[in-house]
Amino acid sequence: MLELHYGPGTCSFVVHAGLETIRAAIGQDFAAHAVRLHKGEHLSAAHLALNPLGQVPVLVAEGRPLTQVLAIADYLDRRFPQVGLLPTDPWARAQAMSQLAFMNNTAHPTFAHVFKPHLFAEDGAAHAELKRFNTKRFRDHLERIQGWVAQATPFWFGERPSFHDAYALTLLRWGGYAGIDPQGLPALWAHAQRVAASAPVAAAMAREKLELNVYRAAA
Amino acid sequence: MLELHYGPGTCSFVVHAGLETIRAAIGQDFAAHAVRLHKGEHLSAAHLALNPLGQVPVLVAEGRPLTQVLAIADYLDRRFPQVGLLPTDPWARAQAMSQLAFMNNTAHPTFAHVFKPHLFAEDGAAHAELKRFNTKRFRDHLERIQGWVAQATPFWFGERPSFHDAYALTLLRWGGYAGIDPQGLPALWAHAQRVAASAPVAAAMAREKLELNVYRAAA
Ligand SMILES: N[C@@H](CCC(=O)N[C@@H](CS)C(=O)NCC(=O)O)C(=O)O
Ligand SMILES: N[C@@H](CCC(=O)N[C@@H](CS)C(=O)NCC(=O)O)C(=O)O
Repeated sequence: MLELHYGPGTCSFVVHAGLETIRAAIGQDFAAHAVRLHKGEHLSAAHLALNPLGQVPVLVAEGRPLTQVLAIADYLDRRFPQVGLLPTDPWARAQAMSQLAFMNNTAHPTFAHVFKPHLFAEDGAAHAELKRFNTKRFRDHLERIQGWVAQATPFWFGERPSFHDAYALTLLRWGGYAGIDPQGLPALWAHAQRVAASAPVAAAMAREKLELNVYRAAA
Repeated sequence: MLELHYGPGTCSFVVHAGLETIRAAIGQDFAAHAVRLHKGEHLSAAHLALNPLGQVPVLVAEGRPLTQVLAIADYLDRRFPQVGLLPTDPWARAQAMSQLAFMNNTAHPTFAHVFKPHLFAEDGAAHAELKRFNTKRFRDHLERIQGWVAQATPFWFGERPSFHDAYALTLLRWGGYAGIDPQGLPALWAHAQRVAASAPVAAAMAREKLELNVYRAAA
């Protein structure tokens, strides 16, 4: 039995989309539990028992919790190798892990500085500076990721959308909240649209009630 | 042929120590190239060709570069499984990857806010606030890691020091620069001393000319 604890629109989408790809490919089912961050549910006693850091995603497998996108992605791929979520050639796999680590430890936290500056500083003036400085950095990170998706055929690792596709989509979506027009990154935007249109990712987006483009031009 | 590009005292120590453990266990050799960050060598054309992000570590395997601590650790463990750097049981391994991811994407960047605030903001007042706020957070992260090393026997995964031991040691060392006395975290300090005394880790520390305790009490 697999259970995902996810926050709609957050990085847990990466795992959510992966689980839908697994279900579509081999019929392995999972249960999805929403954790509403804006209601503080990630800090409830029940959630902290699963993840003392108070974060999503948490994957519960046979009753035991596993945290961290990188660890969950690696675990799911190794448990269901027939789905082909990550490359099997050792060197190609290592490069895939490197890309996933970059999105997770660099691009994703850079956005957190823009969206949740209170996680990194208390002072209001510091918040404004964190938003300003890291919006620029975040755009550079999206360009780097755009360079990677140029090789997608049609998805990052072939015929099925995987964690990397869902992370790229998520980061580009988030860019909209940071005032970055996704259409200004045409190859990444085309990729995100293709990924969003695939049946497994569309199912995860529908459950989370996500719009792909959240960018609003300044009035 | 394996080559490590490392910055003395930086997070590349995690890989450096792992390579020394591999050498001690099975005789697999590697070459070590120092990249002096204080001289800006990480931004040289030669280094940027290996890692466009201008960071260490880079592992070069048969002439091809691999970046990101997580990806390198996973790759080395899978290439040399007989060394036992990470657990083989799938669930234990997933938990190990989760711990490594936490050290890499949360504890490590928290310290970077204290030590290199200019990576996250330009404004001097914001730098001071980043240092203050994240020193507190970093101490909490060290306590979390201290909880994990309590189970070491004698090392994280048994008889040989691995990536996790070297990361915990590195983060505790760095704490000294943030004004955190390692002796205030007795179980973690005992673990770091044990790890530093092991032959492979001692070899890596000698090459990098590292002191274990860099904390200086305020005068
Ligand atoms: N390093 C963690 C990061 C998880 C994370 O940042 N989760 C965010 C949502 S994207 C969260 O739960 N935030 C709760 C909060 O702190 O507000 C991972 O890779 O799983
Ligand atoms: N996410 C990278 C982080 C690497 C990193 O932060 N390296 C630091 C040293 S600990 C670096 O090279 N910094 C150069 C600089 O930006 O000054 C990894 O896991 O390998």
